[in-house]
Amino acid sequence: MAKTFEYSMKIPFDMSDVNGFIKIPQLILLSLQVSGMQSIELGMSDMYILENYNLVWIITDYNMKIDRLPVFDEKITIETYAMSHNRLFCYRAFNIKDEAGNTIIEMVATFVLMDRDTRKVHPVMPEITEAFDSEFSKTMLRGPRFKELEGGVEQEYLVRFYDLDMNGHVNNSKYLDWVFEVMGADFLTHHVPKKVHLKYVKEVLAGGAITSQYEQEGLTTLHQITSDGHINAQAEIEWEEVKEKGWTYGN
Amino acid sequence: MAKTFEYSMKIPFDMSDVNGFIKIPQLILLSLQVSGMQSIELGMSDMYILENYNLVWIITDYNMKIDRLPVFDEKITIETYAMSHNRLFCYRAFNIKDEAGNTIIEMVATFVLMDRDTRKVHPVMPEITEAFDSEFSKTMLRGPRFKELEGGVEQEYLVRFYDLDMNGHVNNSKYLDWVFEVMGADFLTHHVPKKVHLKYVKEVLAGGAITSQYEQEGLTTLHQITSDGHINAQAEIEWEEVKEKGWTYGN
Repeated sequence: MAKTFEYSMKIPFDMSDVNGFIKIPQLILLSLQVSGMQSIELGMSDMYILENYNLVWIITDYNMKIDRLPVFDEKITIETYAMSHNRLFCYRAFNIKDEAGNTIIEMVATFVLMDRDTRKVHPVMPEITEAFDSEFSKTMLRGPRFKELEGGVEQEYLVRFYDLDMNGHVNNSKYLDWVFEVMGADFLTHHVPKKVHLKYVKEVLAGGAITSQYEQEGLTTLHQITSDGHINAQAEIEWEEVKEKGWTYGN
Repeated sequence: MAKTFEYSMKIPFDMSDVNGFIKIPQLILLSLQVSGMQSIELGMSDMYILENYNLVWIITDYNMKIDRLPVFDEKITIETYAMSHNRLFCYRAFNIKDEAGNTIIEMVATFVLMDRDTRKVHPVMPEITEAFDSEFSKTMLRGPRFKELEGGVEQEYLVRFYDLDMNGHVNNSKYLDWVFEVMGADFLTHHVPKKVHLKYVKEVLAGGAITSQYEQEGLTTLHQITSDGHINAQAEIEWEEVKEKGWTYGN
């Protein structure tokens, strides 16, 4: 069994959206910070891996199932563990639980190690997988097959200085930010996601702009992020209408 | 003496900029979360104040003195306490300390209470100031007098859904984000702020766009955020050149 790490917190005001739900890009950032805490605890911090191997973690895939979104002032627990790995890919589970212990969000993120200078993917080393008690499994977790979008609605976004991490890469959580933002405030005020699948294809470079584009079919949206004629990320989201604002929950 | 609250953490990878320094808007968000933790601990949470008084805190002013910025993987302690208050304004100190206990950043933020519906400022109540052991003082802390900019460099930014907090207001940390972003990646890669003074003038409304504008004189920049012909925020920043990247610190 893989080692589990837990972190509990109340959802602060500045992490809550206009409906009183947690902002999803913030939830992802937070989850990544919790897995970072586990790495520090197990002696496998980002700093250790950078200094000893010149490698950094990147995320290639998110798969979220959302039963309901945590609301302002709600106490949640983020549980995370290394589910399994194969030669290149490490699968990490995140379970967001409410105070009664019910899992309200399940997320699986796929991590790979990348050389900081060559930017090439590097096989995962036993020293790392053993520290997390991650299980080896040949099984590859694959998301949906994404098709290239032909039309739809689009919006351009500038890549900002603070979108970049220490390696000059666009921070992972930004892709999802662009995917959500293009839907517009009115749609986001009246809809919440039930399922989100995001696949990272190619790094967005610093200094330029990206286009976030989507096609909608009922309550499903297909997304792509492009720049300089390349696809950088693709996503599929299933939505449902907001029936109850977050701040009325439990009242 | 006001009650002091402390929170310690290591700066994670995703909070570090391309120089290996903490991202300043994230440092502010983090500091506000720490003051939020103190409020919860003292029974004066945002939720309590909202439910009992229909009031929310807004910040009208930030004043930062930066000796040096924390770097990736550095352990810092954020110390905060309610410095003093008068009829309307509450002054809160944040001191960011390194592991040896030296204060490397001092920040004072001015808070006021606002009615959630009328959006009018509300006098601060003894129940609140007493919980924090805040001292009454007639002294008003005033920042520099800002002049209206006449020219300079400008850039438009869309107000995004996730820029808004639960009240539909633009989150405080966004103003500073726009002030920094307009300087461009090249400038921000080669300069760090030594002093930052930001004054909030008028709420930015959801759904529109803002213009972030600056004039530069040597290593001082004057900033303003405008929308619909109004000034929303003004700032003054003193910069210095980056002599040493964050990740070389201590090596």
